[in-house]
Amino acid sequence: MTVGAEDVRRALDRIRSRVRRTPVIEIVVDRRRLTLKLELLQHTGSFKPRGAFNRVLGAGAIRDSGIIAASGGNHALAVAHVASELGVAAEVFVPEVSPRVKVDAITALGATVRVGGALYHDALLASQERARGTGALQIHAYDHPLTVAGQGTMAVEISEQVPEASEVLIAVGGGGLISGAVAWFSDDVEVLAVEPEGSPAYNRALAAGEPVDVEIDSVASDSLGARSIGAVPWSVLVQRPPTSLLVSDDAIRSAQRWLWRHLKLVVEPGGAAAFAAVLDGVHLPAEDGSTVVVVCGANTDPASVIA
Amino acid sequence: MTVGAEDVRRALDRIRSRVRRTPVIEIVVDRRRLTLKLELLQHTGSFKPRGAFNRVLGAGAIRDSGIIAASGGNHALAVAHVASELGVAAEVFVPEVSPRVKVDAITALGATVRVGGALYHDALLASQERARGTGALQIHAYDHPLTVAGQGTMAVEISEQVPEASEVLIAVGGGGLISGAVAWFSDDVEVLAVEPEGSPAYNRALAAGEPVDVEIDSVASDSLGARSIGAVPWSVLVQRPPTSLLVSDDAIRSAQRWLWRHLKLVVEPGGAAAFAAVLDGVHLPAEDGSTVVVVCGANTDPASVIA
Repeated sequence: MTVGAEDVRRALDRIRSRVRRTPVIEIVVDRRRLTLKLELLQHTGSFKPRGAFNRVLGAGAIRDSGIIAASGGNHALAVAHVASELGVAAEVFVPEVSPRVKVDAITALGATVRVGGALYHDALLASQERARGTGALQIHAYDHPLTVAGQGTMAVEISEQVPEASEVLIAVGGGGLISGAVAWFSDDVEVLAVEPEGSPAYNRALAAGEPVDVEIDSVASDSLGARSIGAVPWSVLVQRPPTSLLVSDDAIRSAQRWLWRHLKLVVEPGGAAAFAAVLDGVHLPAEDGSTVVVVCGANTDPASVIA
Repeated sequence: MTVGAEDVRRALDRIRSRVRRTPVIEIVVDRRRLTLKLELLQHTGSFKPRGAFNRVLGAGAIRDSGIIAASGGNHALAVAHVASELGVAAEVFVPEVSPRVKVDAITALGATVRVGGALYHDALLASQERARGTGALQIHAYDHPLTVAGQGTMAVEISEQVPEASEVLIAVGGGGLISGAVAWFSDDVEVLAVEPEGSPAYNRALAAGEPVDVEIDSVASDSLGARSIGAVPWSVLVQRPPTSLLVSDDAIRSAQRWLWRHLKLVVEPGGAAAFAAVLDGVHLPAEDGSTVVVVCGANTDPASVIA
C-alpha cells in the first residue's frame, strides 16, 4: 500500500515529457529569504496532472470507455487535460455546486461533464456507479499509489532546484501531494503540513492516530476540503508524520493579496495556504534561507485576489 | 557612450542583492519547445528596477532632494520602489492620462506623485524643470549607460539558466532592455527585437540608420510607446543590430490570453509582445528548443487578459 522514493523516481521517468518542470523563485519576507516552488504554473494551473498522468500511464492500455473521475475543480481539469493529451475519452462527474466557469473549462478540454448530485460525495458515488457500467478507469483525486507517486515528482524537482532545502511547507487536502513529498525526501528535509483551520483532515488524523472525518468550512474548501486523509496517503504519512500547521481563512486571503501585490501571481486559496503559514507568523522560515514553500494552485477569479 | 559586457557584469555585482533572479520555464507551442524568461515576476512587476537600482547605486551619494523621474507606468513604479528600498526621497511626474490605479500604486510605495501636463513628454519636461530647482537626481527610463547596463543583468541570468540559448526575443520600447542584452550576449546568441506595428521606433531607426520619431498607436503604448530609440541604447544596438520583428495588436491580445489560459500569468500588452511574435508565427522558434522569449511586464488589469 505504501509509496517510496523509488516509486516517485519511476513516476518521474514516466511523466517527465508530459509535465512542466515548474520554476522556483527566491523572495524576501520580513527580511528572511525563502524559496517559492511555483507549481501553479503547471498545466491546468495546479499540480494535479502529475498524479493523473502517472495513474493513467501506469495503468497500461485504456479501454474505449476511457477514464472517469469526480471533482468540481483541479482534479477534474487535470483528468480532462490528461485524457486530451493521451487521446482517450474522459467523463467527469461534478456536483451541482461547481461553478459554471470550471465546468466550461473542463468541457473546453474535451471531457464529458455530468452533474452527479448535490455535493462532491454524491458526484463520486455517481461516477463509481457509472464506471461499473462502462468499465472506464476510475481516477481518484489522491487515494492511489500511482497518484501519490506522481505528485511526489514535484519534490524531486525541489531537491534538484534547491539542494540546500531544509524544510518544505505543503498545503494538505486529501494528502496526495504531501505524501508524495514525504515518500521522496530523505530525513534531512522536514516536511510541514499546512491546512486551513476549517479543513483540518490531517491535523485530526494525527491526533486520532488514523484518518477521521472532519467538518469542512474554509475559503479553501474547493481545493483542500477533503473530509478525510486518503488511506494511501496516510500509509505514507504515518511513517514520518509531518508537523501540522493550521492557518486562518483571513491569513489565506492575506497571502493571496501579498502574492498578487508583490509577485503579480493569481493564486487560489488552497494554493496560498502554505505561504499563509509563513506570512502570518505561524511558522518562522529558516534563518539561512533554506525554507521552501509550495504554491500549488492558480484556479480562482483574479478579481478575488486584488486588494 | 556605449555599454559593454563588463558594464553589465559590474551592474550585476552592484544590484544582485536588490533584484530577484527571475525564473525560466520551458513550454511547448505548436509542438516546439521554448523557454520563457519570467521577468514579470521581478519587483514591481517589470524589469525596470534592474536599471533603476544600477543608475542610483552607481551615482554615489544621493542628496536630500532624492531622485526624480517622469513616467506613468513601470518606470515610475521602479523608481518609487528603488527609493523606498534605499531610503531616499522620490518625486515622480505623471501625465494627466495616467490611470488612478497606477498613481495609487506609486504613492503606496512612498513616492511623491505630481501631475505634469497632458502627456508623457510634458511630464518629462516638468520633471526636468523641477530637478533644476531641487537638485534631485534625474532617472531616465532608458537613456543612460547605467540604466542600460542594469537591464542587461537579465541577460546574464538567461546565459546562466539557459546555457544552450541560441536566440532571445525581447520587446522594444525606448531600447533599454534590448540594448543591455546586446551588450551582454556574445555572437553565439542572436537577439531579436519585437515591436508593435503601431510603435515601431527601432524598426524605423534601423531603416533610417539613426533614431527617428514615430507615431504611437498601439495597445502596448503605455509600456513600449517611446517615440524614438534612446541615444545610449542606439549606440549599443548599432554595433550589432538585432533583427526587427513587428506584431499586430491582435497578436498581442492573443498572446495575453494564451499566457493566462495556459500559464495563469497576467501579462501586460508590452510584456506579451515578444511571445506574440512566436504565437502568431512571425518568428518560428528553433527546432532544438534553444529559443528564449522574455515576458517582461505584468502591470495590467487581470480582467483585460481573460478571454
